[in-house]
This record gives sequence, C-alpha cells and structure tokens, in this order.
Amino acid sequence: MNEPDADAVLSALKQRGWTLGVAESLTGGALCAEIVSVPGASAVLLGGVVAYATPVKASVLGVDADLLAVYGPVHPQVALQMAEGVRGAVGIDGVPADVGVSTTGIAGPDSPDGQQVGTVHVGVVTPTASRTTEFHFTGERDSIRLQAVAAALDGLLEMLSE
Amino acid sequence: MNEPDADAVLSALKQRGWTLGVAESLTGGALCAEIVSVPGASAVLLGGVVAYATPVKASVLGVDADLLAVYGPVHPQVALQMAEGVRGAVGIDGVPADVGVSTTGIAGPDSPDGQQVGTVHVGVVTPTASRTTEFHFTGERDSIRLQAVAAALDGLLEMLSE
Repeated sequence: MNEPDADAVLSALKQRGWTLGVAESLTGGALCAEIVSVPGASAVLLGGVVAYATPVKASVLGVDADLLAVYGPVHPQVALQMAEGVRGAVGIDGVPADVGVSTTGIAGPDSPDGQQVGTVHVGVVTPTASRTTEFHFTGERDSIRLQAVAAALDGLLEMLSE
Repeated sequence: MNEPDADAVLSALKQRGWTLGVAESLTGGALCAEIVSVPGASAVLLGGVVAYATPVKASVLGVDADLLAVYGPVHPQVALQMAEGVRGAVGIDGVPADVGVSTTGIAGPDSPDGQQVGTVHVGVVTPTASRTTEFHFTGERDSIRLQAVAAALDGLLEMLSE
C-alpha cells in the first residue's frame, strides 16, 4: 500500500485546494484504500462509494438507468457518470467534491455481460475537465484490480498536472 | 488479499441468502476490497460507502448528526448507525441489504479528536441481531487498518455462526 502515485495525487489536490470523491465498481474499495493509506488523506478525501451491484450505480451515484439497461455497467459513459455522481454523493452541505474518479470493468473470472475480462474504464472529472480512458488488462482477478487502481491514480495525476 | 475469513463470510452469507453492505471510515475501502477479492462476491455484496469525512457519515449513512457533534466519529453508537445505515444506502428498489458491517476509529498518526490512536469500533447488524465491539490496536497506520479489516471480518463471521 501507499504507492508513490497516491502521495502525488494527494499533494496535487492539496496544492489546488480540491477535495476528492471515489466511485468504484471492480476495484471494490481498493482505490479509495490506496488513497487513505497516505497520512493526511483526510484533508482531501471526502469519501467513496463502492457501487458493486449495478442498480447501486444508479441509486447512489445517479448513473442513468437506461444507459445501464442498454449498455451494462462497463461503458465509458457509465464511468463518466460515476465520477460525476460521486462528487455530489460525498459532498458536504450541498457542496460537491471538486474531483471525482471512477472505475468500472470486468475483473473476472466470469464475465456476466459477455465483455472481455480485463476491460476497464476509468473516469476522472475535475472542475475544469473530464475524461474517460479504456484499458484492456490481462492477468488474474487481483492483478486486474490492482492494474485498475494504478490506472486510476495515473489518470488522476495526469489530469491534475495539465 | 483474499483472506480465508472473507471466503468464509461470503459462504455464510450465501448459505442464508443474505446480501451485504459495507460502511467504512478508517479502513477506507480496504474491508470492502477484501470481500471483493473473493470470486463470486457479486452474489452477496451490494456495495459499500467510505464515509471518510465526518459529515458524510450523516449525509450518506444517516448517522445522527447530534451524536457526531457530541461524541465525534469514533464511538460505538456511530459504528452501529453506520452498519445500520449502509443497509439502506446500498439497498435495491427500496429493499435494504440484509447485513451491514462498519468500521470507525483512529489509524493515526494524528488523533484529531484526542482519542487514542488504534481505537477502533466495529459494528455488525443482521436481520436478527446487532453488535458493536471496541478494539485497541497498536502499530503503524497501515497495520492498524489491516487489523481493523480482520476484526470486522471476524465479527461478521461470529455473528453469522450464531
């Protein structure tokens, strides 16, 4: 735990005075835990939502239910709406988190929606920009989840460095 | 990852046909991630909430704001209300998760509320019982968090074995 990337993400957020919310599906909390492993994370991280069951992506994060019904949970637009939605979900006194990050994908071993195991979408929304990135990882379930965590931290860092 | 305890917890839940929600503070998603590391977790786990900032414990999990104001977030009743609240938060179509588990405590290195670093409360709520347990762990930040994850899994397993 406590990857250099998580340190760098927190430093970059702190420097801008931005708060963070984390929305996870396949990573199941591991991304948020990685961020929390950095001492002083509480200055930046408001909280996270693990929307593991598909309907929770709609009910807690506000992802469009029709989008989920048509495309399933592994889709760039779902990642984007998760990252957007968690900002409000963990907001305080009606003020959303400044930045949201999300992961959705297939860790395997099974693929309920017929998509390829290892397909992962990462979403990042900041006050000035938003982006989704698609990855195709290989390996075992835990390895795919760890690669997704690293990709999300990388994605955050990249957006914060622009 | 993938401790034997997480396997046993999921088996016990599956056997009873019960779903699970996870509410975390100091463990920051690591408890939920531990559960997700077991293949087939999706049959049981609906989702989780990392209520890291104190107000998020009230807004997302429904913990009594007065309780938080008077006692702070590290209190057995807060743990209990987090475990209770996450059942509804990750519920589907108005049906709450059957079981909720929670962690709240001080991982250190600082203790904002003056409580001892290593103090952890675990809450478990099932359809038939509820319980909170207080722990006093020693060690570094990551070690305290890992001990809290293990204690929560143990607590769940104990409640499901009764």
